[in-house]
Amino acid sequence: MHACVRTALRLNGFPCKRPENVTADDFFSAALAFPGNTGNPVGSMVTAANVEKLPGLNTLGVSMSRVDYAPWGVNPPHTHPRATEIIYVLEGSLDVGFVTTAGKLFARTVCKGELFVFPRGLVHYQKNNGGAPAMAISAFNSQLPGTQSLAVAMFGASPPVPTDVLARALQIDGGLVEAIKSKFPPK
Amino acid sequence: MHACVRTALRLNGFPCKRPENVTADDFFSAALAFPGNTGNPVGSMVTAANVEKLPGLNTLGVSMSRVDYAPWGVNPPHTHPRATEIIYVLEGSLDVGFVTTAGKLFARTVCKGELFVFPRGLVHYQKNNGGAPAMAISAFNSQLPGTQSLAVAMFGASPPVPTDVLARALQIDGGLVEAIKSKFPPK
Amino acid sequence: MHACVRTALRLNGFPCKRPENVTADDFFSAALAFPGNTGNPVGSMVTAANVEKLPGLNTLGVSMSRVDYAPWGVNPPHTHPRATEIIYVLEGSLDVGFVTTAGKLFARTVCKGELFVFPRGLVHYQKNNGGAPAMAISAFNSQLPGTQSLAVAMFGASPPVPTDVLARALQIDGGLVEAIKSKFPPK
Amino acid sequence: MHACVRTALRLNGFPCKRPENVTADDFFSAALAFPGNTGNPVGSMVTAANVEKLPGLNTLGVSMSRVDYAPWGVNPPHTHPRATEIIYVLEGSLDVGFVTTAGKLFARTVCKGELFVFPRGLVHYQKNNGGAPAMAISAFNSQLPGTQSLAVAMFGASPPVPTDVLARALQIDGGLVEAIKSKFPPK
Amino acid sequence: MHACVRTALRLNGFPCKRPENVTADDFFSAALAFPGNTGNPVGSMVTAANVEKLPGLNTLGVSMSRVDYAPWGVNPPHTHPRATEIIYVLEGSLDVGFVTTAGKLFARTVCKGELFVFPRGLVHYQKNNGGAPAMAISAFNSQLPGTQSLAVAMFGASPPVPTDVLARALQIDGGLVEAIKSKFPPK
Amino acid sequence: MHACVRTALRLNGFPCKRPENVTADDFFSAALAFPGNTGNPVGSMVTAANVEKLPGLNTLGVSMSRVDYAPWGVNPPHTHPRATEIIYVLEGSLDVGFVTTAGKLFARTVCKGELFVFPRGLVHYQKNNGGAPAMAISAFNSQLPGTQSLAVAMFGASPPVPTDVLARALQIDGGLVEAIKSKFPPK
Repeated sequence: MHACVRTALRLNGFPCKRPENVTADDFFSAALAFPGNTGNPVGSMVTAANVEKLPGLNTLGVSMSRVDYAPWGVNPPHTHPRATEIIYVLEGSLDVGFVTTAGKLFARTVCKGELFVFPRGLVHYQKNNGGAPAMAISAFNSQLPGTQSLAVAMFGASPPVPTDVLARALQIDGGLVEAIKSKFPPK
Repeated sequence: MHACVRTALRLNGFPCKRPENVTADDFFSAALAFPGNTGNPVGSMVTAANVEKLPGLNTLGVSMSRVDYAPWGVNPPHTHPRATEIIYVLEGSLDVGFVTTAGKLFARTVCKGELFVFPRGLVHYQKNNGGAPAMAISAFNSQLPGTQSLAVAMFGASPPVPTDVLARALQIDGGLVEAIKSKFPPK
Repeated sequence: MHACVRTALRLNGFPCKRPENVTADDFFSAALAFPGNTGNPVGSMVTAANVEKLPGLNTLGVSMSRVDYAPWGVNPPHTHPRATEIIYVLEGSLDVGFVTTAGKLFARTVCKGELFVFPRGLVHYQKNNGGAPAMAISAFNSQLPGTQSLAVAMFGASPPVPTDVLARALQIDGGLVEAIKSKFPPK
Repeated sequence: MHACVRTALRLNGFPCKRPENVTADDFFSAALAFPGNTGNPVGSMVTAANVEKLPGLNTLGVSMSRVDYAPWGVNPPHTHPRATEIIYVLEGSLDVGFVTTAGKLFARTVCKGELFVFPRGLVHYQKNNGGAPAMAISAFNSQLPGTQSLAVAMFGASPPVPTDVLARALQIDGGLVEAIKSKFPPK
Repeated sequence: MHACVRTALRLNGFPCKRPENVTADDFFSAALAFPGNTGNPVGSMVTAANVEKLPGLNTLGVSMSRVDYAPWGVNPPHTHPRATEIIYVLEGSLDVGFVTTAGKLFARTVCKGELFVFPRGLVHYQKNNGGAPAMAISAFNSQLPGTQSLAVAMFGASPPVPTDVLARALQIDGGLVEAIKSKFPPK
Repeated sequence: MHACVRTALRLNGFPCKRPENVTADDFFSAALAFPGNTGNPVGSMVTAANVEKLPGLNTLGVSMSRVDYAPWGVNPPHTHPRATEIIYVLEGSLDVGFVTTAGKLFARTVCKGELFVFPRGLVHYQKNNGGAPAMAISAFNSQLPGTQSLAVAMFGASPPVPTDVLARALQIDGGLVEAIKSKFPPK
């Protein structure tokens, strides 16, 4: 079989279990069966089922995530450096959008049962536009798409991005940059 | 923007809408919001949201489908020549499996909220293992994964695969091959 | 040199021999010089020269096979999950065909010196249409294309594909499915 | 020749000039010979030589840019959705960095003649750390890597990203978001 | 069907026939059934079955060639810019070799029924090591691998490569370069 | 982070440093800061910054080189088996060219600040067309493009390419082939 089930040793991608040790469970995950905890400042939580969680995905170029949203919760602007995303709404309705490299926003409301595409590497977000919890499933054409939050990349990196670089980029003063940084303590 | 929204002219892939004519709706689909009609001999229906239905997927390498299952309904053994599939169960529970090129079956039950992976190009199936309707969403790492039913490829092709080839392959007599072919009238 | 000659350790693909240990023999094979034994129920035998047999193919994305056919022998319907195939007839003439995802059969007779293409992942077959042995060489755009026989995938998997799934798929009764399964004892 | 020189018609990628019309000039550009105008709020200017400017790059998967920096000028945090970048410093010295998907900053000073790598899709920046103009050449493994400024994507998109989404993402109040947006008038 | 059968219009790759116009003959070729004319200075002739000759290969990433050799004939040193090659000997025996980027020659004799691999882009050659005609089939993992003869590239290009460049490269005098060029009249 | 920084063990590509051991220096190189020694028969020297020198390039698909030229120095005809090249002239001016698989030369003069493209795998060269030293930077869309000098591949391989093969290829006599070989002692 081509599927190459990872073990612990680090490589480009991951090495393989011996075929005789591969089982159906290597291709199964219950990780997306349970709601994530949305009790956080943005009011959303992403739970991933990628190759780090699901060994059977190794070499197969696809993965999934579940996103839970508190009422009015936001999955803040972010990118996936290595994948296009399709989001399918399971509960509630979302205001979603992505920004092109030309600075154009493509946005609309996506209701239960509907889907929307976020092209590879572009900044995008979702917002629960209702007072009840919402939930969606996302699929990616990478076994490890990666996620980069713009807020964290700019204001929460460790070590921090220099304040003068951000002040110049956002055309705000350094004190304000520091104030925003204080909301994103480095992990 | 890199996303290249198709028009009607046929090419490798599809040509592009002019960027100024692209809208958010090119990245949106409601095609998977409604149950497919499972009133057919196998008791299942697949509804696809691929680049043929969703122009914004052009060049982006990902697509989705919805599968509806009647009670005890079966999505019969088939392959996707150009993609790996992840299936996520939304209602009910499914008995799923795929067969490796070594002839090994990897199978298990997948319940609501759980997912399973079918590696690229391998024969796989799902069966609703309950008396109520079931439903699942599948994602693919291709904008047009293609689907080939084994039963149709062998017994329902147009023109038909020669009876003696199938008789030899299945080690059954030609009359029986003809009898099975009669269940699959060429479209 | 870029060619990365495999050793025994399993990885995604295969690790490399040290360059100083690579020899011309790593790029050579005599495996296709001798006829395969066609004394079997289908009357054909495939002999492969892929990366498992020919270490120098590692990372190079190509491989070859030889197919021998007894008089009227059949290479039964199968797929290659990871490659397109070109077949070139060396002895005799073959009736060949493949089925598209739209259920259309493309078939014709291919004589000595002629070739035919089987697109990636699609079900295809060959039949020796004469009373003398036939032989062909196939090339693949993968170092390990994989082969999945439809008959084995459906009726000879281990553990077996559930009988009711096959009965539903083929619209035949379970007893008949069991009868066909009995012809394909799991390896 | 494989190189497929584009004409004006839009497609996935670009169609080809007829081979007899291709000239050496299709593979040549002087676009990076002259300094860009750094008289702007960030104090830097990027000049691109991609497939839109250099037809011969079509299908070849590589492109280049020139970056000019005013004294203390900044090329603000941005991503390239479709490429890795190598930057080579020609004049002056730069403080550069990128942020990983784990929120880790990799940063250092890069002087004349030295180079640094920004992995595909990750947020990165450069700052001229001196009082004289600086200049660098960047190479990309894409014929059209695309560039997305984080500041523009968040605060200058057209139509704008909703203020409440940004306020929630950055954990600042909406008035402040509006104030920053006012610095980035939609194009 | 995924196979995209080319028409005459030039594009990246080739546009598609409408599916209803595709026939089995689009996947068939008799071009390799007949010996090439080896009555030329090198004593060999290559006959190609690539996407330019075999429309069905479009998008499928594989092609084949036939090589005929006069007694002691040579297929002179050349490269394929876009493919790895596997050669399978049908008649006679060949002395074959390729040179690595480290300047190492991997060479050996390949007899009827045996095969040898030439890694992508590396300089290689074959020589009929017997007094009878020889013949081989080559497969490539590209629908249009391209072939570049070293002798033609250096001495037969149109317009010609400057004599002083070749004299410096080969460390011979310009008169000798001119003498060799005279053997390769530009086409 | 996706970037997979190599260690010493040989694999396809290279294994990874543990993420906690990766530093900014893994993405930095000063290797191209200093002129190469052009005191050699061709009057040029290439200095590479590829994955063998710059571990952070592992899996990222890009690399750079610096080329120094003595007055009238030549970078002799060669190919890169695995990459397209863009060359950017930093000092002096160069006469550059590449030969297509159709034997057509595309050549012109490229001055300081200008760039030129050499499509993947095609034979190309550069010559310093002035009496002062020249210098250029080249970028490649491969982490390890490889370089094959035509003169070395033909006349300096170890073991040597058979003299009769070269004599036949170049249509010169064997004594002359031997004379040229004597200029390229095997390493």
